[in-house]
Amino acid sequence: MADSVLLHFAFDPGSRCARLALGEAKIAVRETPVKPWEDDCPLHGLNPSGMPPVLKVGDLVLCESAAILGWVDDQTEGKLLFTRDDAERAETRRLTGWFERKFTDEVQAVLLHERMEKPLLRLGPPEARALRAGREALKGHLAELEGLTQGRDWLAGRRLGQADLVAAAHLSVLDYFGEIAWATYPALKDWYVRMKCRPCFRSLLGDRLPGQPPVAHYDDLDF
Amino acid sequence: MADSVLLHFAFDPGSRCARLALGEAKIAVRETPVKPWEDDCPLHGLNPSGMPPVLKVGDLVLCESAAILGWVDDQTEGKLLFTRDDAERAETRRLTGWFERKFTDEVQAVLLHERMEKPLLRLGPPEARALRAGREALKGHLAELEGLTQGRDWLAGRRLGQADLVAAAHLSVLDYFGEIAWATYPALKDWYVRMKCRPCFRSLLGDRLPGQPPVAHYDDLDF
Repeated sequence: MADSVLLHFAFDPGSRCARLALGEAKIAVRETPVKPWEDDCPLHGLNPSGMPPVLKVGDLVLCESAAILGWVDDQTEGKLLFTRDDAERAETRRLTGWFERKFTDEVQAVLLHERMEKPLLRLGPPEARALRAGREALKGHLAELEGLTQGRDWLAGRRLGQADLVAAAHLSVLDYFGEIAWATYPALKDWYVRMKCRPCFRSLLGDRLPGQPPVAHYDDLDF
Repeated sequence: MADSVLLHFAFDPGSRCARLALGEAKIAVRETPVKPWEDDCPLHGLNPSGMPPVLKVGDLVLCESAAILGWVDDQTEGKLLFTRDDAERAETRRLTGWFERKFTDEVQAVLLHERMEKPLLRLGPPEARALRAGREALKGHLAELEGLTQGRDWLAGRRLGQADLVAAAHLSVLDYFGEIAWATYPALKDWYVRMKCRPCFRSLLGDRLPGQPPVAHYDDLDF
């Protein structure tokens, strides 16, 4: 779709979800990076929340990752992001909501604020207490995910689907900042290596934050 | 579905979403009220988050409102909660996410904590500053919804759909506590009167919180 444009911010988990889903569906779009915190950011005229991601497909404006993932699901006739199995569909939806709410509230809102927003917006040094709380919460979530990946091929069951893309989007941002102790979570690491090797992941591994290089293994496919 | 059971808490917006969607789809389930804050709540063995709603349909366990709404969508072959129009589908998904994140964070997490959780769990009197902040945020959201309903038949467009059910679930809980100044939002009030008159709404209007009666107009269909 030559006239499709994705407005995204490379370190926003929702933007990464959209890029992974579009990539997995082989829907070509022009990726336009935006800075949502700037007054003249083009998002402001498009999305009432002022946030990325926004996908424009001709006249159609898709705001937020849920709308973009839903549209990808529609375009692929429900065959790409979900299996037909009722239990796997339920699990995919439960996990998507888990990342969008619990993981975002307890981990991302804390760690990405301290590690990314503060340096970007010059809000001062990170607070040790906040970092500790966010990292403690992250451990609980990673243990939960380790349990899931020990018993399943993919996060929600036997086939790769939306839950894997959402989880990989979230974890890949934290991995950039070296926040994930992969050695502690071998089954989750094995899942993440498989995710990283997919063609849809390639552009994410090239993302760089000015002044903050990634952890050494960030773009290493066999770390 | 005679062997279907919905575990729900009557004043949890997600539980109300599930009841409205099941009611709108005319899927009969046995509604079992639960108290998620009690140690022996049956949710704990079913949903890793420990939260309602959970729907059991035979062996299938659907955790969280996203999984239940998705299942209702599957059961109704995509004809009930969404229209076929791409723009309305995108708007439905944007608004669903808006309520699940922004509205929940800025309004429900504050006002329902002060007005419902504190009396229920005996956590002391409400804090005036928190109430003011939550009510100020609510005004902004209601003004946004008033704008949408002025220009549309239903929240996301020309037909009732998931966005209406999600919005009505959230607003109806706040309405119980008298938090919505309907006279200020005439188009939104007209929409809410239409929602309230639907058969799916009937059981919600019978909900009562011990020791806290609803505002006088709560179950009045023509208020």
